[in-house]
Amino acid sequence: MYSGGYAGKILRINLSNQTSSEETVPDELVKNYLGGAGFAIKCLYDEVKPKTPPLDEGNKLIFAVGPLTASGAACASRMSVVAKSPLTGAVGMALSGGQFPAEMKMAGYDMMIIDGKSEKPTYLAIKDGKVRFRSAEKLCGMLTTDTQLIIKDELGDQNYRIACIGPAGEKLGPMACIVNERRAAGRKGLGAVMGSKNLKAIAVRGSHRPGVVDAEKFKKARQAMNQAMKDSPVLYPQFSKSGTPMVVDATSGMGIYPINNWSATGEIDMVRGLGDAAQARMIVHKAHCHDCPVGCSQIKLVTEGPYAGYMSEGPEYETTYSLGSTLGIDYLPAVIAADRMCDEYGLDTMSAGVVIGFAMELYEKGILTKKDTDGLELKFGNHNILLEMLRRITYREGLGDILAQGTKKAAGIIGKGSEAYAMHVKGLELPAYDVRGAKAHGLNYATAYTGADHNRGYAFQEIFDIPVPEQVDRMVVEGKGRLTKWNQDIRCVTCDCAPMCAFLLDMAVPGIACQNTADLVNAVAGTDFTPEEIEKIGERINNIARLFNIREGFTRKDDTFPKRLMTEAIKEGASKGQLISQKDLDTMLDEYYSVRGWDKDGNPSAAKLKELGIKTG
Amino acid sequence: MYSGGYAGKILRINLSNQTSSEETVPDELVKNYLGGAGFAIKCLYDEVKPKTPPLDEGNKLIFAVGPLTASGAACASRMSVVAKSPLTGAVGMALSGGQFPAEMKMAGYDMMIIDGKSEKPTYLAIKDGKVRFRSAEKLCGMLTTDTQLIIKDELGDQNYRIACIGPAGEKLGPMACIVNERRAAGRKGLGAVMGSKNLKAIAVRGSHRPGVVDAEKFKKARQAMNQAMKDSPVLYPQFSKSGTPMVVDATSGMGIYPINNWSATGEIDMVRGLGDAAQARMIVHKAHCHDCPVGCSQIKLVTEGPYAGYMSEGPEYETTYSLGSTLGIDYLPAVIAADRMCDEYGLDTMSAGVVIGFAMELYEKGILTKKDTDGLELKFGNHNILLEMLRRITYREGLGDILAQGTKKAAGIIGKGSEAYAMHVKGLELPAYDVRGAKAHGLNYATAYTGADHNRGYAFQEIFDIPVPEQVDRMVVEGKGRLTKWNQDIRCVTCDCAPMCAFLLDMAVPGIACQNTADLVNAVAGTDFTPEEIEKIGERINNIARLFNIREGFTRKDDTFPKRLMTEAIKEGASKGQLISQKDLDTMLDEYYSVRGWDKDGNPSAAKLKELGIKTG
Repeated sequence: MYSGGYAGKILRINLSNQTSSEETVPDELVKNYLGGAGFAIKCLYDEVKPKTPPLDEGNKLIFAVGPLTASGAACASRMSVVAKSPLTGAVGMALSGGQFPAEMKMAGYDMMIIDGKSEKPTYLAIKDGKVRFRSAEKLCGMLTTDTQLIIKDELGDQNYRIACIGPAGEKLGPMACIVNERRAAGRKGLGAVMGSKNLKAIAVRGSHRPGVVDAEKFKKARQAMNQAMKDSPVLYPQFSKSGTPMVVDATSGMGIYPINNWSATGEIDMVRGLGDAAQARMIVHKAHCHDCPVGCSQIKLVTEGPYAGYMSEGPEYETTYSLGSTLGIDYLPAVIAADRMCDEYGLDTMSAGVVIGFAMELYEKGILTKKDTDGLELKFGNHNILLEMLRRITYREGLGDILAQGTKKAAGIIGKGSEAYAMHVKGLELPAYDVRGAKAHGLNYATAYTGADHNRGYAFQEIFDIPVPEQVDRMVVEGKGRLTKWNQDIRCVTCDCAPMCAFLLDMAVPGIACQNTADLVNAVAGTDFTPEEIEKIGERINNIARLFNIREGFTRKDDTFPKRLMTEAIKEGASKGQLISQKDLDTMLDEYYSVRGWDKDGNPSAAKLKELGIKTG
Repeated sequence: MYSGGYAGKILRINLSNQTSSEETVPDELVKNYLGGAGFAIKCLYDEVKPKTPPLDEGNKLIFAVGPLTASGAACASRMSVVAKSPLTGAVGMALSGGQFPAEMKMAGYDMMIIDGKSEKPTYLAIKDGKVRFRSAEKLCGMLTTDTQLIIKDELGDQNYRIACIGPAGEKLGPMACIVNERRAAGRKGLGAVMGSKNLKAIAVRGSHRPGVVDAEKFKKARQAMNQAMKDSPVLYPQFSKSGTPMVVDATSGMGIYPINNWSATGEIDMVRGLGDAAQARMIVHKAHCHDCPVGCSQIKLVTEGPYAGYMSEGPEYETTYSLGSTLGIDYLPAVIAADRMCDEYGLDTMSAGVVIGFAMELYEKGILTKKDTDGLELKFGNHNILLEMLRRITYREGLGDILAQGTKKAAGIIGKGSEAYAMHVKGLELPAYDVRGAKAHGLNYATAYTGADHNRGYAFQEIFDIPVPEQVDRMVVEGKGRLTKWNQDIRCVTCDCAPMCAFLLDMAVPGIACQNTADLVNAVAGTDFTPEEIEKIGERINNIARLFNIREGFTRKDDTFPKRLMTEAIKEGASKGQLISQKDLDTMLDEYYSVRGWDKDGNPSAAKLKELGIKTG
């Protein structure tokens, strides 16, 4: 197995007593969970006691990379960051790319499990297997770019790669993220978990690329992957140039790009200023993750007007929605500025934007007044208040303190019928696909173990017309249970565990993902996975994550949508008239549970758990 | 001579045809001008044609370090940046420290002479003697921190050190500076010269410390320096902890810290919020220049309130005045934010602040109205408009475009008696010493070859009560000519040429500066300078700089002060009643010209030029 090749290592950090220890990755763990999110969620399930409050020191914060990270396979510098989420109470898992994941692996580790709570603010400096606990007292309150610069200065080595939190995480805001370089493990409030542990940053520096057991086999598998990437009609010709904003044009054309807190999806004139062409004009630099030949990440700069000087890596497709269209804002410079400030504050762009859109609708409806906003005109389209709102959310001032808790909790505090405008599932704010016109996206939002999370089972079939594993009609309800299981399982294991960048799955290798992952991992690690075993690992992880959530009290009734999507049809555009009724949802859930081998309430059956080798209790 | 030891090199860059060439530093140049500012000003005098417009491609931009840079001598990572100044029309010379100067030397160069103008935006990547011209088109408009990060990314090496301009320099604002790391060659608009050449940045990377000819002699000279530093009652015990803001308390106590555009010097209650204790509370990190054991540079962070998240290396003493007290602002977080934004825009904090103070006084006096300010309440003490004013100055919008040209030209454009409130000498805005109560400071402001520049002949005797070379009374006019010559000559050669950080001269080695400089340079370079020859080099440089200015049209009448200082006495505090009348100024100038061997009009005599070996014409 795994130990036949590179012997992966787990680093355990105990912040309470400032100690660390190493373990070799057990073969059984590799066999059943592969790496990355698989390792981390298994650890979360086994080691975090039921009903642990997410910001309690008993929660664990886990960083995990996979067997392919830093191996030389394309686009494998991806990490999963996992903890029980303070935003949802469910499994919190967020991905990030960049340089940090590869550097972490080269520093010696497949997984870092961070336990306990430091008495005083601390950061970790980890270099080739040597761990130091350093005081972060002077870093408290520092924005993320400055934090990374100062730590490099302090360590006297510009080559450290650093993951850190900003003020949002320090203030324990449940929408806080973890930022490495200009990227983020964005969603589910993992930055607040890091903040609750008094951990400001982790700096890693590594000089050892892990070995490859079978170089010949590896070369062949890499070639297959590279060929598929070259053959993609989208990956290099378009995606490499535009990045994710190219999808704005696609989904707004399909009438599923949400506007004004989902009250105006389909009015595509609104999003012209946010589309691919507008964004392309502001690109100044391409950013490549480690070992990535694509470089989809585009750095954009504002050079004139009130936001002149602001630069961000992004906005990505999702942020263009959350800090743009769902706020009724189509002035791209404002979106770039807000994107940058979210990164600096360490605030998830998606949740932070959506909760502001929620507040804007409440203000327009008179549920919130100028008294509540301390004088701010919180109207759709008013970009002048956007940076100030983000500041108030970060520092938890006034209404900002309520919104900082996320849309679900904010609706609970505000009351007065505001829940009707709260766009979330399980407390996680909705991504930028109006699922009324994209049913498989919808079922994934309803069932993903992290809440409304496009990354858990992205239905590329509905957006890019790719007939893998089958041709689908995005408007149709039937068959989406089977498709969603496939999307969730395949994506989980290939993208979140191996890991491989999700965009390769979507645009280059959907048909060969499991085969290619098996070939690459077997070559790197000396394992003998079949494609079927690889897929099964994805299923296993989705089941153990479900078990975690059930243990925390989640049931079928949490597998749902905001009421608006089930009662109001889309008013304009190419998806006009579309809706997902309660009946539609039930049809899809029944099918989904059935193909998953779960009962009517969404509990995995004993037979399924036995088949997967999962022991409970 | 010099070539007996380390053979210094000059790099010539021609931006017009994108070529470079190397020369060995001639022995004669070392003998007469030592290094640093000496090399650069000699080059400026010889190579830039009379009456060349400063933003014409015929101007040259020169970066020069000295024989001690990167030698291991303490505090020698200092560089002089020189060009004809677009702000004053005189010699423009500004100093910067940090890591760049040492890295430039280790990359192989004592001086880089940048000539011509690139057709398209360009940056230079210089590594161990290899020069590359790279496109900076995508970097246009980028703030300075981001510029440095992106260039490191693009070059694939985090260890480059970079000097760059921000939007202010690109927009050719004559107050634009050149930023390296978080430091700046701040004054005299050298960033605009760089902008006029379409040069966005210079990245240097070097791996070769220059050799030392006589290691034993070097060790002894270093020990003498280090001992003097340890013996200083101020350098380590206080300055290392507080940095320059410790001087705020000293000068405000002396009643010479200017407030409200110099209308209220002496009202020390105003500056309590800006003093040493207030600043110390916000320090989060010490920054050390290369090979500096002191680390006076303090990084400060705002952690709450409207400016939360802003961090700056500073504000230094001068910036505390220019972006604080002279604007009537004592809210330190606003000063920190403004300091950071000036660094990001590449805007000199001193000139930019003083010109805003000038505009505030005009607004208070009704010479400027709300119509002129596009609605901004430009009143003393209103920090809410400060960042917006800096943005408008940088991007040259509305009144900002007028102020961007510096106080002198702005007064000319605005008219209506505004010159009475324009605090500058020769177009360079005044530093933070009210010279009415510090007469040697005053004479230096009036005569320094760069305009009102504390760095050209800082009278530490008046501030720190150090009786070297003699005891002085700051209120007295007599004897200040002799003192100013000494201050200007010693500082020029030891600090601007050797180079050595000015704070060592002020606080540690004033009495042994020339001896120690001679010892160190002789050991490093195999020269045989006497202390007297070292001092003479300082005199030579001050003379050739004077000749440059005379050639450009400057005369005795430019050696003066703003009228306010000659007609209004200080109203409050420990310097109450003090003034420098026209008669006082004339007395000081006569004495100064006389000890310099200059005629009544301030022209160096033929005998003096012969003595110094300077040939003209």
